[in-house]
Amino acid sequence: MTSIGIFGAAGRMGRAIAQVAAEAGLPIAGGTDRDCVGEIAPGIAITADPLALAQASDVLIDFSVPGALSAHLDACIAARTPILIGTTGLEAVHHALIDAAARHIPVLQTGNTSLGVNLLAALVEKAAAGLGDDWDIEIVEMHHRHKVDAPSGTALLLGEAAARGRGIELAAHSERGRDGITGARATGAIGFAALRGGSVAGDHQVIFAAEGERIEIGHRAENRVIFARGAVKGARWLTGQPAGRYDMKAVLGL
Amino acid sequence: MTSIGIFGAAGRMGRAIAQVAAEAGLPIAGGTDRDCVGEIAPGIAITADPLALAQASDVLIDFSVPGALSAHLDACIAARTPILIGTTGLEAVHHALIDAAARHIPVLQTGNTSLGVNLLAALVEKAAAGLGDDWDIEIVEMHHRHKVDAPSGTALLLGEAAARGRGIELAAHSERGRDGITGARATGAIGFAALRGGSVAGDHQVIFAAEGERIEIGHRAENRVIFARGAVKGARWLTGQPAGRYDMKAVLGL
Amino acid sequence: MTSIGIFGAAGRMGRAIAQVAAEAGLPIAGGTDRDCVGEIAPGIAITADPLALAQASDVLIDFSVPGALSAHLDACIAARTPILIGTTGLEAVHHALIDAAARHIPVLQTGNTSLGVNLLAALVEKAAAGLGDDWDIEIVEMHHRHKVDAPSGTALLLGEAAARGRGIELAAHSERGRDGITGARATGAIGFAALRGGSVAGDHQVIFAAEGERIEIGHRAENRVIFARGAVKGARWLTGQPAGRYDMKAVLGL
Amino acid sequence: MTSIGIFGAAGRMGRAIAQVAAEAGLPIAGGTDRDCVGEIAPGIAITADPLALAQASDVLIDFSVPGALSAHLDACIAARTPILIGTTGLEAVHHALIDAAARHIPVLQTGNTSLGVNLLAALVEKAAAGLGDDWDIEIVEMHHRHKVDAPSGTALLLGEAAARGRGIELAAHSERGRDGITGARATGAIGFAALRGGSVAGDHQVIFAAEGERIEIGHRAENRVIFARGAVKGARWLTGQPAGRYDMKAVLGL
Repeated sequence: MTSIGIFGAAGRMGRAIAQVAAEAGLPIAGGTDRDCVGEIAPGIAITADPLALAQASDVLIDFSVPGALSAHLDACIAARTPILIGTTGLEAVHHALIDAAARHIPVLQTGNTSLGVNLLAALVEKAAAGLGDDWDIEIVEMHHRHKVDAPSGTALLLGEAAARGRGIELAAHSERGRDGITGARATGAIGFAALRGGSVAGDHQVIFAAEGERIEIGHRAENRVIFARGAVKGARWLTGQPAGRYDMKAVLGL
Repeated sequence: MTSIGIFGAAGRMGRAIAQVAAEAGLPIAGGTDRDCVGEIAPGIAITADPLALAQASDVLIDFSVPGALSAHLDACIAARTPILIGTTGLEAVHHALIDAAARHIPVLQTGNTSLGVNLLAALVEKAAAGLGDDWDIEIVEMHHRHKVDAPSGTALLLGEAAARGRGIELAAHSERGRDGITGARATGAIGFAALRGGSVAGDHQVIFAAEGERIEIGHRAENRVIFARGAVKGARWLTGQPAGRYDMKAVLGL
Repeated sequence: MTSIGIFGAAGRMGRAIAQVAAEAGLPIAGGTDRDCVGEIAPGIAITADPLALAQASDVLIDFSVPGALSAHLDACIAARTPILIGTTGLEAVHHALIDAAARHIPVLQTGNTSLGVNLLAALVEKAAAGLGDDWDIEIVEMHHRHKVDAPSGTALLLGEAAARGRGIELAAHSERGRDGITGARATGAIGFAALRGGSVAGDHQVIFAAEGERIEIGHRAENRVIFARGAVKGARWLTGQPAGRYDMKAVLGL
Repeated sequence: MTSIGIFGAAGRMGRAIAQVAAEAGLPIAGGTDRDCVGEIAPGIAITADPLALAQASDVLIDFSVPGALSAHLDACIAARTPILIGTTGLEAVHHALIDAAARHIPVLQTGNTSLGVNLLAALVEKAAAGLGDDWDIEIVEMHHRHKVDAPSGTALLLGEAAARGRGIELAAHSERGRDGITGARATGAIGFAALRGGSVAGDHQVIFAAEGERIEIGHRAENRVIFARGAVKGARWLTGQPAGRYDMKAVLGL
């Protein structure tokens, strides 16, 4: 049976993963967390040593912070343990680290582990490919009041899908954080807006707006369990793969 | 230049088509309407004779009522004039009439002429194909207070797309008009709900709901001009086709 | 400390109430359920005797079925125990039973126990009072696939609020289950539509639609815990009241 | 009959106002516009002289730009003509100018002239007053791709209503343009997000989000005619008032 280690074990997603693994009868090897020590589950301690955790695990799941990624990847490479990365707020430097690690071990990085969101991304790509740039693209998301970054990793995942469908680079066409005198919207831009409040697990909507009509494609998550379930599914799948970089599409058969 | 005749010329869609055709510089051959006589446009009269209209037109557009379809098709066959049918509320008997007519003339029948809705239908089919029947499908639409039938033709078009994606017959799996003690939802059912009010030109949403998450795919029309524009585009395209039955996909390149 | 008895203890709401009461440190007197026997919580059995339960409880909470209401009220009257009723699908005969019981004991009947929905009802009443009947009113709700009745009790609660604001009788102005040739919308009607699917805890939206504009007022529940919390709050409040019929407004200070 | 002058006569709103006035049989005195010369309506010229326009009009309607406000108010004061101001993007300096002008002439300034939005603002104020600050407030709006400022004047009007209901200053509690590492949401904040695309006339939604539930209160405008109609109604009402500063509430009887 696959033994799972959790980076960021005391966070919201870390706890949900421990619970889903327990319900599925999967052993938890342990976890690390910058903010606290204690127990993930009865008898399973949070440790401060990523390498020891990587060595004790068949696969790692990381929902921690971008600043910890480098140390986590080093530990996984040293232990030759695959890793699924769901941490959000990654920048170019982190993606370079992931690419480098994927030459040695299997690495799955994703902005969202749910079947629904990944299917949504496929629909967004298809829609963007079928509609000309007289259809403006806007992405709006809502998350709970504790989320510290914007846009969400999932919003960016959807933005990448839209850009891919349209054959453009997302970075060069993003409009983020509109406020004040913005001027008219740029043709071909992909806009992002972030709402925060309450305990919302994650709502996303992609809007294609043309003269006189709109297409709206969205996803609502009722709770974090669907993400934890997808992460555990992805982690188990990853243990059977050769070194390389993966996303959720292969796991979900999309 | 293509000369257009309009069945149902005094209705909301008939008037919008006359206006779009005029703006595009296309001649209007005339129109018929059960409810009134008068002028479609300056100098263009509403007549009572479908055959005369069919003979005077290069193509017909029909947004009238199901009860008039048989006479309209007979006139078009006799005059060998193609016809685009956007009338809603059609039943099996009307579709049989259309199939028969399509052996003699080009006939395009559609529940919706807009690019947005037809792309939406393609997305719905893809989503239904990618999601198992643990994802319940619901279709909800809103139209203006004057609409007399439910569900809308477009809702049914989207239901057909969902059923096709899932490999089932829509008629055998529809749940319509829920009220009272309905019992639990049937697995694999496709539900329909109709809202009516104000001057809404047409909003549609297809919801895929599973345990813990939902995908929502929708379309909003701001006004009828987008439908009229699509109808005129479809009618012009139809004049170049051989006898047969068509839908909007070929027109829109989907 | 208030000891709570639960009619319908094995249902979705019954279980949620037992959990919320346990978390709040409130003792559970026991429960009844037509469908099963067993334990509500460790050491707390489901019984078959409403009267014994009513005698053992400081207050009852009923989320069962309309058919059981008469026996439940009789038990509460005999034991002189207050009761909060959240059962849905009630008809005129049940409301008459409640009115009769309220002459002897405190009875709180409500279609929804959450603060959000009850505030929503106040907003709907205000909006309906401020807008003429050139604003059509539609109410649409979505619930999980297991729900057996339509419209939801909350939808009816919102419909009553709209009717009150407008000074009309809901029963005489409802349009439910639209399907087929419905004719144009009646002026002053209040429409209802029910969506079912997945695990949706309860979404409601009231739409006011006029020529050219719409107001939309809605509520989304992420899970049943908010309803259970409201029910426990209402039940505790009820123990301090004289005989009479109440709703959630007084509890919530609206 | 009330003769209307239009500042910003060649813009989207200016044109809509001219059309609505014409349909209502009201004379148009003329207009000014920084971007062009020409005709507002057959025989009605755009001029470059605000004072001449103010002297020729019974009331002015201004949907132009903040930079022109000072000159427009001076002209109205000199001519003693009332003015309705719907220009968006106003800052503190402009509001001071309006207050000063209102000592001499009737001035109505509003972020939105529709009945629906102004009723919405009343509902938002009531909701904010009834919900504690464990309910986070977010305001999201969508407008057409040509809009140059964010948030919209209407979003700010709704934000002011929420702040008033909660008894706080909006300026001190706004969160606008979230992007990057924002940190967790501040308690009591009112968030704003702006979507832009297509030809959307104006959609607004105010979300109140708490632990486990959300209330959503929104408005959709299908086209600008509703705003133009409200502006003309407000302008006519304004001609009968003494000097002072007004908003739409009195006009609409809210």
